[in-house]
Amino acid sequence: MSIRIGIMGYGNLARGVESAIMQNDDMELVAVFTRRDPASVTIRNSQAAVCHVDDVEDWKDKIDVLVICGGSATDLPVQTPKYAAMFNVIDSFDTHANIPEHFANVDQAAKAAGKVGIISIGWDPGMFSLLRMVSDACLPEGKHYTFWGRGVSQGHSDAIRRIAGVKDARQYTIPVEEAVDRVRAGENPEFTIRQQHTRDCYVVAEEGADLAKIEEEIKTMPNYFADYDTTVHFISEEEMKKDHSGLPHGGFVIRSGVTGWDKENKALIEYKLTLDSNPEFTGSVLAAYARAAYRLNQEGQAGGKTIFDIAPRYLSAKSDEELRAHLL
Amino acid sequence: MSIRIGIMGYGNLARGVESAIMQNDDMELVAVFTRRDPASVTIRNSQAAVCHVDDVEDWKDKIDVLVICGGSATDLPVQTPKYAAMFNVIDSFDTHANIPEHFANVDQAAKAAGKVGIISIGWDPGMFSLLRMVSDACLPEGKHYTFWGRGVSQGHSDAIRRIAGVKDARQYTIPVEEAVDRVRAGENPEFTIRQQHTRDCYVVAEEGADLAKIEEEIKTMPNYFADYDTTVHFISEEEMKKDHSGLPHGGFVIRSGVTGWDKENKALIEYKLTLDSNPEFTGSVLAAYARAAYRLNQEGQAGGKTIFDIAPRYLSAKSDEELRAHLL
Repeated sequence: MSIRIGIMGYGNLARGVESAIMQNDDMELVAVFTRRDPASVTIRNSQAAVCHVDDVEDWKDKIDVLVICGGSATDLPVQTPKYAAMFNVIDSFDTHANIPEHFANVDQAAKAAGKVGIISIGWDPGMFSLLRMVSDACLPEGKHYTFWGRGVSQGHSDAIRRIAGVKDARQYTIPVEEAVDRVRAGENPEFTIRQQHTRDCYVVAEEGADLAKIEEEIKTMPNYFADYDTTVHFISEEEMKKDHSGLPHGGFVIRSGVTGWDKENKALIEYKLTLDSNPEFTGSVLAAYARAAYRLNQEGQAGGKTIFDIAPRYLSAKSDEELRAHLL
Repeated sequence: MSIRIGIMGYGNLARGVESAIMQNDDMELVAVFTRRDPASVTIRNSQAAVCHVDDVEDWKDKIDVLVICGGSATDLPVQTPKYAAMFNVIDSFDTHANIPEHFANVDQAAKAAGKVGIISIGWDPGMFSLLRMVSDACLPEGKHYTFWGRGVSQGHSDAIRRIAGVKDARQYTIPVEEAVDRVRAGENPEFTIRQQHTRDCYVVAEEGADLAKIEEEIKTMPNYFADYDTTVHFISEEEMKKDHSGLPHGGFVIRSGVTGWDKENKALIEYKLTLDSNPEFTGSVLAAYARAAYRLNQEGQAGGKTIFDIAPRYLSAKSDEELRAHLL
């Protein structure tokens, strides 16, 4: 029998999960839940139901894992604990500073319900966290670096779109090559924010908008841009559509440590992702960990989990024998 | 209380483990076991005992995890199951084809004794296996590639040393750049053995040896060299000592997969190691998984384990709260 998956929400990430399920023969998408009128939402999977979010409780015994594809700012802090009371759940909560609180809420709800709730799955947090943690354990004396990009930051693109006179925007995060080179050389440098990444913005302005004012507003926006070297390019709607319609992303985590009795030898671990589609890869990771949520719960486990708590074997559709024979 | 570690053997790998333990405050090396006369073996750690292997049973209650640093050809197939009957054990068994059999033997012995036996830990098998497996689960449609080097292959160096007229030898395994470029471009090519790696050999010949004959013997050696483009350099003993005394190694695992409803997008995962010292890094990974062996056994687990069976949290000396707050 297949693992029956439900998806909460139907944005870019949800569509990524929907596609990923198609690559996993042991999983089946049974329902997508939306806050919109279900009749107005067309999904690509023709077998699955489209339901209103208010009806989700009716699916309690028909869904093995609910993948929650809301936003980290306001959706997930409410949704993940709420639905952990009914389903095994998994989310991609990515507000790093609030992870401890979110974990505690999901853990409590999931434990009470006898369900598994996995939070913060994707690539950062997610695969990058896994690599940071494992590399930190294997090379305890050292430093780790995370570089993002070149890729589209949806949060930064949205921030630009909220500026008056901006019709559309796309922001690329770009690692500073010199910084990367120094880390790869094992120098273990200290960086300011500005030294590690630059931000490249493509903006479609409304007719007659004050371009200089928009550029100034972007470059001085606190948290998002003020601490970075930021470049702003004004382009046409056609150029935006032609050259910037994808959501590529990626980046790399580097652990730079030492080995040897006198710590005389360098050891460098680098984990790098190059993704044509950020939400689709995130969805692919969510699908693998949804399998883990189901299996852990089948074994009687309950409560909150992160990527650190889950043995890799639970991610794979392959048997232990097959994994040992072919991938070890 | 510290985790009390014993080391079986005292070669390069054992010294790597000894160094790694110094970087882990929650661990303590208590004894090294040797087949030689213990009085003839000087270890670097002045607190630990040096004992004959025949006395290992006396340490049953004084060692939490025994790290077995023998060779995969003849030592580990015997030692790991044998000592799993007395201790939690861990090894770096690396004969890929014999892993299923070795696992079964260790599993049986460890289960019977109520101990944990972790096999095939290091970087390949080990970290590379972890990356192959997790990446395979996250991107089920795709191919994976493993490139080794540039680095010293100890097995190949030994093979050359066995040739008549050879005094010393060092063999470097080198990935073929064109092959790497094609994989990184997402082409998913099929390679012959020759297309992926070349082998570069530095040989000190005995005086009067027939160099042409040595070169011919190396290049035609089945399994080790015949299937590769191999280069042989004859050098002096001084050059060997000056330029080739280290044991650097490394390499990378690449998973090249697709995402999207029509599988229209590429996703590339690359995990790369650059190691000044191969045995010291392997020793560092063994130390982290020795911690896991101890903790899993403390929780009541027993039996054979591989890197696929162990949740990452068990590797780290940090608390779950600390991991979630700082590394997720």
